[in-house]
Amino acid sequence: MKTVIESVPNISEGRNSEAVSEIAAAVRAAPGVRLLDVSSDAAHNRSVLTFVADETGVRQGVRALFDAAVPRIDLTRHSGEHPRMGAVDVVPIIPIRGATVEQCVALSREIGAEIAERHGIPVYLYEDSATSERRRNLAAIRKGEFEGFAEKIRAPEWKPDFGPDAPHPTAGVVAVGARPPLIAYNINLGTRDLAVADRIARAIRHLGGGFRYVKALPVELAERGEVQVSINMTNFRKSPLHRVFECVKSEAERHGVAIVGSEIVGLAPAEALLMAAEHYLRLERLSAEQVLEMRLLEE
Amino acid sequence: MKTVIESVPNISEGRNSEAVSEIAAAVRAAPGVRLLDVSSDAAHNRSVLTFVADETGVRQGVRALFDAAVPRIDLTRHSGEHPRMGAVDVVPIIPIRGATVEQCVALSREIGAEIAERHGIPVYLYEDSATSERRRNLAAIRKGEFEGFAEKIRAPEWKPDFGPDAPHPTAGVVAVGARPPLIAYNINLGTRDLAVADRIARAIRHLGGGFRYVKALPVELAERGEVQVSINMTNFRKSPLHRVFECVKSEAERHGVAIVGSEIVGLAPAEALLMAAEHYLRLERLSAEQVLEMRLLEE
Repeated sequence: MKTVIESVPNISEGRNSEAVSEIAAAVRAAPGVRLLDVSSDAAHNRSVLTFVADETGVRQGVRALFDAAVPRIDLTRHSGEHPRMGAVDVVPIIPIRGATVEQCVALSREIGAEIAERHGIPVYLYEDSATSERRRNLAAIRKGEFEGFAEKIRAPEWKPDFGPDAPHPTAGVVAVGARPPLIAYNINLGTRDLAVADRIARAIRHLGGGFRYVKALPVELAERGEVQVSINMTNFRKSPLHRVFECVKSEAERHGVAIVGSEIVGLAPAEALLMAAEHYLRLERLSAEQVLEMRLLEE
Repeated sequence: MKTVIESVPNISEGRNSEAVSEIAAAVRAAPGVRLLDVSSDAAHNRSVLTFVADETGVRQGVRALFDAAVPRIDLTRHSGEHPRMGAVDVVPIIPIRGATVEQCVALSREIGAEIAERHGIPVYLYEDSATSERRRNLAAIRKGEFEGFAEKIRAPEWKPDFGPDAPHPTAGVVAVGARPPLIAYNINLGTRDLAVADRIARAIRHLGGGFRYVKALPVELAERGEVQVSINMTNFRKSPLHRVFECVKSEAERHGVAIVGSEIVGLAPAEALLMAAEHYLRLERLSAEQVLEMRLLEE
């Protein structure tokens, strides 16, 4: 697979496992699609599907997803802890290799137009695909949720990018957009003092003056007798893992605390880890061409 | 490709580019084979082919290689700087993923038996496939070269593992065996003093008391005004890149010298670099499953 694009659609169903299985099976059966993961959360009443494909495959996978999800998920009867506005709530389109952000933005527009036409669902383009600054942020679009959209959608600033000016009666609205890969990266500290993790989280996150593409929160790991800086890396190419790690290490040392370990939760692109190897080994040049497995993916 | 086995056969032809192309084309056309690289050296009069495949594919690739190379390479008329004993001189069988050393040893035996039967070429099993300690070392097998084998092969300790007790009249003999991936890794030092590189090379290499799977030599980089520790890593799983790098760094500091950079020459398995990322980021667990591209290779 020369071009690898990832999509991690979130659907508003995490309790009816039969419905989730049927939707996942439809995506898996789409030509050119490799479904890598399906995770359901009953409290959130939400599931996340992870699949990869080339451009054509992503289009087919998203089409199969909507065709299966729209008749099976009724938001008028949906409750859960996670905010949601659509049966399919959000469809991120993520360049991994052999595809640019621009190509993924163009792809998200094509997909958005098709969803609107095929299902009569209003579509908002978000993140790198956003048509205005306020639409970059998914939380801003989703505010008011499914129940509030009948009203919200009538405001001129919330006119959808594609589709009708009224939410779909059972499927609501959806956000579609290109964004960089997200990496969930946690660093564990050798102390029980949550205040240390809190100060470090504040130091490294964008909101507190830290790295632009870093979100971070302190977490207690009572059973380990440790605390954790729980990190969401929203653009590892610009705010890389190794730079954030070294910053956490230096801040922790200032408190007399050591880093015990770290973990990546879920999937990460090889590039994120190869960048760390390149940094620490001071590699002058390391092309993906030189990594045997990356060569195998090229053909 | 679930199982990835690499083979890097060396053939005794590096000047007749038509012959090399024809041999490479035959390997490329073998079912299930991905030919990744062909490098010829005219002074050595030798070429190295790199291909990957699963077990069946490796068998087919090696068969195609011999079928094309034996009629095209005549060792009675061969000269070059590199020692050689066969038209196809050596066939390493290298487990990359989804295959054990034991499987590659078994595969090398099957391949050896087939070469002997199909072409009447004596076969020596070497490295992990060796049937006696003295046959582990390729240089020990090759000693005497093509010209000396008519005599050498009659000694009981050099009876071939497969095939006749006389070298093939034009194709000589061949070594086949399983071994770990080799990585060529060079570290550049911010000094013109070759003695520093020499002392570090001696410190890290097995011969001098250093890492078991490390060979190292000092090299002058006159045009850069630097010197280099040129390293062959013969088993990166047991003597990993990051450990060798840190040892070179510490030895260089003792001489007041900094590491300017490093480079990997040619191909390396992803695992070698992921191990470095895992070490420096103190990852508590990183499974290949979590690396998106590795997941794509699994299916």
